[in-house]
Amino acid sequence: MKLLSVGTVAFDAIETPFGKTDKILGGAATYIGLAASVLDTDVHLVSVVGGDFPDEYLNMMKGKNINVDGVEVVEGGKTFFWAGKYHNDLNTRDTLATELNVLENFDPKIPEGGADAEILMLGNLHPAVQLAVLERMKERPKLVVLDTMNFWMDLTWDLLMDVIAKTDVITINDEEARQLSGEYSLVKAAKKIHALGPKYVIIKKGEHGALLFEDGKVFAIPALLLEDVFDPTGAGDTFAGGFVAHLAKCEKFDFESMKTALIVGSALASFTVEEFGTEKIQTVTPAMLKERIKQFKELTTFEELV
Amino acid sequence: MKLLSVGTVAFDAIETPFGKTDKILGGAATYIGLAASVLDTDVHLVSVVGGDFPDEYLNMMKGKNINVDGVEVVEGGKTFFWAGKYHNDLNTRDTLATELNVLENFDPKIPEGGADAEILMLGNLHPAVQLAVLERMKERPKLVVLDTMNFWMDLTWDLLMDVIAKTDVITINDEEARQLSGEYSLVKAAKKIHALGPKYVIIKKGEHGALLFEDGKVFAIPALLLEDVFDPTGAGDTFAGGFVAHLAKCEKFDFESMKTALIVGSALASFTVEEFGTEKIQTVTPAMLKERIKQFKELTTFEELV
Repeated sequence: MKLLSVGTVAFDAIETPFGKTDKILGGAATYIGLAASVLDTDVHLVSVVGGDFPDEYLNMMKGKNINVDGVEVVEGGKTFFWAGKYHNDLNTRDTLATELNVLENFDPKIPEGGADAEILMLGNLHPAVQLAVLERMKERPKLVVLDTMNFWMDLTWDLLMDVIAKTDVITINDEEARQLSGEYSLVKAAKKIHALGPKYVIIKKGEHGALLFEDGKVFAIPALLLEDVFDPTGAGDTFAGGFVAHLAKCEKFDFESMKTALIVGSALASFTVEEFGTEKIQTVTPAMLKERIKQFKELTTFEELV
Repeated sequence: MKLLSVGTVAFDAIETPFGKTDKILGGAATYIGLAASVLDTDVHLVSVVGGDFPDEYLNMMKGKNINVDGVEVVEGGKTFFWAGKYHNDLNTRDTLATELNVLENFDPKIPEGGADAEILMLGNLHPAVQLAVLERMKERPKLVVLDTMNFWMDLTWDLLMDVIAKTDVITINDEEARQLSGEYSLVKAAKKIHALGPKYVIIKKGEHGALLFEDGKVFAIPALLLEDVFDPTGAGDTFAGGFVAHLAKCEKFDFESMKTALIVGSALASFTVEEFGTEKIQTVTPAMLKERIKQFKELTTFEELV
């Protein structure tokens, strides 16, 4: 199946306890595209960059069969820039700079080749842009997956509710699920979020794994155990990209397929956090993914119990 | 196999966002005994209480085939008392009162019938008492399991190191593993703790599940998902009790058996947190445990991936 994703393509400057970077390649759509490319997915990106965005980045993506026809280049404009510094536990961070630049007036254009995609991944972005993309598809995609964050809950609640009502799957972290639902218990939170629209609710818990809810059913996975997390930037986007890419490949949207998609997304995200930015996920091969999924099985599989 | 456990038998006064109790039955050995009784384990407790400890509590335990011959009653003495108040997230708490009472001069006496137990569970208690029990066994048990906490790391580091060096399995929470090892990464923490003695390292993560490490191998489980956690008191002790009870029943100490024991302990702990103190775990039947283990399988099982 064809996958189209909207999201940022950006410059990030990252500081972690282990080092810091200058402006490097980042952005939700970038990670989603790179994750999907590992599974050799027919993936199309919708985004915007400035004239300062290096051709080599776009060429790198093209080389991985990521379709970037929908990535508008605004000559004379500047690419979206984010700078952040992670605390010692790597679970919390301070935003040091956010320069919207060309993102400020981003009017998403769906490329001809991607407008009939069966799966639409709405990467983390202003909900007005997410809505515009959804409305500009040739027809309503078979599956709409939404990634969002607390920032949009704080600033654009009503618009976000509109998007959520139109999605099939939502991926958010545990704190965001609590904020969105007003419930501390994640079981209760998922119930309330189902009622807002999404049939499937995915709650990401970082180093503690992820949960998948479908009305009355739940599936839980731990995160792969790494000796060290180097840079968490892009982990959630990589997860989302791997998740939708698996669904695009297996062409089924039932609970069992979602479970496997959760594991594939989690396995891919475990690569991203091992190096700065996109450094590691750019190097991942299908064989590496397969090996990591094997590790995941070893981590979680047990003999018959009852 | 026979199981002997030392630990507190106590009065607790608990306050949670959902209510508060007067002095109710508590203590590590109490929860360990109750958990073991669900599996119909030959379990013997070593502890001390005061003359104020109600016969009905001891009779309740006897009625569940928990051997309390090793629970010394100090006439005229007062039973250990702990009072605590949980914060809204139930993950943190303040200790409001700790009255050691008869625990202050506790000199553990191993009952004749329990001195040859193959499995020794050293429940959370002063490491000097844990060491004394270990030394007073007829011979070195086949398996020694240690539960401890940050309190003993702060106050009795050297003694605690002595106990740790003599144990096969240690169970601690994630923050304690970090404190004990000086490593933030739990993978690295487990390696360092292995080097202190224990062949198996269990890291409890509360609502996020648990990890089991054996040199180079690791197994992870999520916690069962509950609509609400009512009172976390005793969850760690119940987990430890269920863990050792399963090993006593299956009579094997390999990695696969430890995995299953982890699941059994986790399933039993999920009952304890549903009511105040021991209220719920006292009512658990083998059929209820079996049903919860079935839920655990549904929560974690997925189809073939690769």
